[in-house]
Amino acid sequence: MKFYDCQTAPSPRRVRIFIAEKGIDIPVVQVDLRNREQLEPKFSEINYYRTVPVLELDDGTKLNSTQGIWRYLEEAYPDPPLMGRNATEKGVVADLDWRMEMDGFMAVGEALRNSVSRLKDRALVGRYDYAQIPALAERGMSRIPRFFEDLERILEGSEYLAGDAYSVADITAQVSVDFAGWLKLTIPPSAKNARRWHEMVSARPSAAL
Amino acid sequence: MKFYDCQTAPSPRRVRIFIAEKGIDIPVVQVDLRNREQLEPKFSEINYYRTVPVLELDDGTKLNSTQGIWRYLEEAYPDPPLMGRNATEKGVVADLDWRMEMDGFMAVGEALRNSVSRLKDRALVGRYDYAQIPALAERGMSRIPRFFEDLERILEGSEYLAGDAYSVADITAQVSVDFAGWLKLTIPPSAKNARRWHEMVSARPSAAL
Repeated sequence: MKFYDCQTAPSPRRVRIFIAEKGIDIPVVQVDLRNREQLEPKFSEINYYRTVPVLELDDGTKLNSTQGIWRYLEEAYPDPPLMGRNATEKGVVADLDWRMEMDGFMAVGEALRNSVSRLKDRALVGRYDYAQIPALAERGMSRIPRFFEDLERILEGSEYLAGDAYSVADITAQVSVDFAGWLKLTIPPSAKNARRWHEMVSARPSAAL
Repeated sequence: MKFYDCQTAPSPRRVRIFIAEKGIDIPVVQVDLRNREQLEPKFSEINYYRTVPVLELDDGTKLNSTQGIWRYLEEAYPDPPLMGRNATEKGVVADLDWRMEMDGFMAVGEALRNSVSRLKDRALVGRYDYAQIPALAERGMSRIPRFFEDLERILEGSEYLAGDAYSVADITAQVSVDFAGWLKLTIPPSAKNARRWHEMVSARPSAAL
């Protein structure tokens, strides 16, 4: 296997944390997003969509999304389980992970990619250029405090997002919270459960990645 | 179990098709989105996020997203498999399904929800009102033809999106293509493989739902 990563980027960080939690040893290729290496024709041959993360399997199959990579690795390396331990938990983890991606990760991306001058014309990740939309940056900024509120609601009385076991839903939420830090937004002190959870996941060795 | 659906809406259609393909018999509650029943306090008690689909399990657990519902049902009713038959295929299906959701379903949603007068202030599904952004409607319209191109590329030499077996990636792509029809956008005649595939999935009994 080969893992195409970018050490400074939040999207492949979800995969980095997952791999560390599983304890799998996978050779890594760094892709320099800051210098737009992912947009060069050479990388386009590796991933049509011009994004990282990419996981290349030993049979040549390439998985170009966090969801695809996670699912493959969970099946190939089941211990420790990070996507639920039985049918109900698998459903709940998938449910919350999707929610954190939509309301957390996507909201931060929307705010950041539509405002930062370095990303002019790169308002969406991927193959094509799209102009920034200032109103979309504003919308993203207004969604992030609601994401923090929702985290607090979910974590009231629950150790991790999906209950008593750490899962990919925690990874997506954690990476989203830290990504919001790029915009100087943090979980408010009043959100005690979300704060307690964020401290706890941030203390795991995988969080340093 | 209980499935909260809305017969006219594309989002729960992904679940309707999945349930039909599995041949599972689940009692259905219709939620009248056209009259905003999902925004009433009564429905908020069922789903905090004020969206359908929702699947209520027999133990009271509620799954509020297509991803969560699919994953639970796939585990609880494994035949026929719709999310891959081995580790690699599970990865590939998750990968393509995510891609179709992001580049297909989301692009159409972006175009439609930011332009239709009936959805003023409802530019995002969910708990909160967000104003329409006309530039976002335009961006969505420009993304849809690229989604059709991508479908054609993936389906060249492949019966279904993830290879020789029908999967959730086909469901998401099919529902996205049909959803684009609301905007009078269709797969162009030059995209012969995408057209062939769309005819084939549209001929399945589940497509009538």
